[in-house]
Amino acid sequence: MQGGIEVDRELSWGANYTPRRGWFHSWSNLDLAETRHDFAALKDLDLDHVRIFPLWPLLQPNRTLIDSAAIDNVLAVADAAGDAGLRVSVDLLQGHLSSFDFLPAWVSTWHRRNIFTDPLVVDGQKALARTLATELATRAHVLGLSLGNEIGQFAAPRHPETFHTTPEEAYAWNRDLLDTLTDAFPHGCHQHCFDDNLWFVDAHPFTPRAAVELGAETTIHSWVFGGLAQRFGNDSPKLPHFSRYLLEIADMWHRAFQVPADRTVWLQEIGAPSPWVSTERAPDFLEQSMRAAHGYANLSAVTWWCSHDVSRDLADFPELEYTLGLVDSEGNAKPAGERLREIIAADRRGEFTSQPTEATSPLVVEGLSLDATNRSLTGPDSDICAEWMTAACKGIYRRLELGS
Amino acid sequence: MQGGIEVDRELSWGANYTPRRGWFHSWSNLDLAETRHDFAALKDLDLDHVRIFPLWPLLQPNRTLIDSAAIDNVLAVADAAGDAGLRVSVDLLQGHLSSFDFLPAWVSTWHRRNIFTDPLVVDGQKALARTLATELATRAHVLGLSLGNEIGQFAAPRHPETFHTTPEEAYAWNRDLLDTLTDAFPHGCHQHCFDDNLWFVDAHPFTPRAAVELGAETTIHSWVFGGLAQRFGNDSPKLPHFSRYLLEIADMWHRAFQVPADRTVWLQEIGAPSPWVSTERAPDFLEQSMRAAHGYANLSAVTWWCSHDVSRDLADFPELEYTLGLVDSEGNAKPAGERLREIIAADRRGEFTSQPTEATSPLVVEGLSLDATNRSLTGPDSDICAEWMTAACKGIYRRLELGS
Repeated sequence: MQGGIEVDRELSWGANYTPRRGWFHSWSNLDLAETRHDFAALKDLDLDHVRIFPLWPLLQPNRTLIDSAAIDNVLAVADAAGDAGLRVSVDLLQGHLSSFDFLPAWVSTWHRRNIFTDPLVVDGQKALARTLATELATRAHVLGLSLGNEIGQFAAPRHPETFHTTPEEAYAWNRDLLDTLTDAFPHGCHQHCFDDNLWFVDAHPFTPRAAVELGAETTIHSWVFGGLAQRFGNDSPKLPHFSRYLLEIADMWHRAFQVPADRTVWLQEIGAPSPWVSTERAPDFLEQSMRAAHGYANLSAVTWWCSHDVSRDLADFPELEYTLGLVDSEGNAKPAGERLREIIAADRRGEFTSQPTEATSPLVVEGLSLDATNRSLTGPDSDICAEWMTAACKGIYRRLELGS
Repeated sequence: MQGGIEVDRELSWGANYTPRRGWFHSWSNLDLAETRHDFAALKDLDLDHVRIFPLWPLLQPNRTLIDSAAIDNVLAVADAAGDAGLRVSVDLLQGHLSSFDFLPAWVSTWHRRNIFTDPLVVDGQKALARTLATELATRAHVLGLSLGNEIGQFAAPRHPETFHTTPEEAYAWNRDLLDTLTDAFPHGCHQHCFDDNLWFVDAHPFTPRAAVELGAETTIHSWVFGGLAQRFGNDSPKLPHFSRYLLEIADMWHRAFQVPADRTVWLQEIGAPSPWVSTERAPDFLEQSMRAAHGYANLSAVTWWCSHDVSRDLADFPELEYTLGLVDSEGNAKPAGERLREIIAADRRGEFTSQPTEATSPLVVEGLSLDATNRSLTGPDSDICAEWMTAACKGIYRRLELGS
């Protein structure tokens, strides 16, 4: 690959915080000394922010009971991050983490109610949003909130217990809950987030329109196991371009819905999942993915998934989840973590060169509907994706355009 | 009703402990001062024991992670009961409480596995059983453990997310987990327990055979809302006889399976649910139910459901759950609590007279199969139940017999 460009903006670098001891179950039994130790390791990698994930059933075990001690725990972890010199973004409703679902009993089994449309459930979520956002707003080191980690997957066709929701309902849910956060925390940067089903699955009620119109910025979760690696092969040279492909997908929808040209995109999750990315290739995959993303002018931040490997003492995680960390389960920086530190240092010196952007070579997605009911035209199995990836491997990132 | 008998045995009197503040969500944020306050109120009613209910997802958030702090909380509550002069029975797997289900994420949605038959899940349950039973065995005030509050309902046809289980599998699960408890806590009195679906629903994989053959004693949960009140009417004079009907049902199966004649029965749950029992009738219903049960010679204990009313601050409980307490949500003894105290005092003086037992008038259940596949022949809607209740209202408790 020849050439390269230098983009003139301050990029923020961070990690999705997965507590080293006890994973997110540590919320039940919080040990702040452990938290501080974890954050020190991340600061040592020169990260500037973390994204944190409370568990919904602990925050709100009953619809009308917001546990003040659980709220205090979130504030304590956020403040520990601040003390370590890290800014913090907080995900509200978990919801879903690394294959495990955490729904409170009051929306499950005998009490099953749609978490996106049931008025009482949504009122409960808003009460929690107000409570947590009001507290977090008092912290200068808190950036804002996301609605919940990929929570839209509870409405996705593939979920084993789908809450059936229309696109209009999903849009309204995102909009109204973001408004609640903004009311309580006006200076915060609040988002909603989703896996790439939103961009690529025709029947998903969470839509590109919601992705690009709602929230302070558009978010991207870049995972090559969603079809790309299966199509092109493990360790394919196409894989590190996927982050940029998703950024260009978002950019296409930005233009389609005529959002302000300066709307930024947060690459909120990206990781190197084994075996699609082999362990020894993880640092190179990370660097190449960063170069690919870095050239996108409206990129605001990159947040690696994840901070710490899940301990093998914990059972039943998908195999890939045990090795995604920048830091291992003993607390030692891994090669991917070291590589990220080098990249951040280079970027801060203005010496991290991006892959080139070729804006003069549009790739038109013929027939793509604004309502996204045929968005699989751009999915990892599509002709468009293959054509885009072929050019990418020749150093050209084509600009995606909706056909007429 | 004429006559009455005095049964010569020491009956144990207690309550199912429903924490006054925060219900069972208080486990997440345990305030032992509150616990001690609650237990003092129960001791003030002259109770001698409580049954307590940890939440499974807190004890074991991951299959291989037993949270030592959550175990410590159970021990602390058990010890607070001991300090108050109350003995304690602990339910292992909640599981289910007052319409809410609490299953850990590692057996739910993406990780759904049968909690009665999946070998890894059952191994995890046994690890928890060993851990908790080993600790509880060191406490003289701990009576033993039950496997989990009505946990068999997760295999019942009526559950919205039934774990399909055969009678053989259900029997083996009960047996093996009870063996695990006994190995770890040999001097404990361990049981399994169930709602009356076990006695009356033909397709239920948890069977009368398991009820009467497994565990240190047979348990009974007596709830008139399971069909009896719907059939005979709210506040029907038949309702207080239901506890005794269930005891006679258990006794019939004892004889059918030739269990030792001295096998005791614990009336582990009985309550006065509104509107089937009107609020002003609750104390009389309690007293009449106690008289009805008291005459059953092998009764070992009565445990009222429940200790404390659920606070109206908590949402989404079925209406009846807010008013079942002996003590209200402000901490004041209710008329039912006062009445129970009087009964206990009379019983300890040897002055509490039971309803008579008429053992000379057998009622034969023709065609009832030992495998219980037609056990609805004895259900609240059955002719047998109606005939038994008619005699009961004339002062005769007929002995139920399997037909040939």
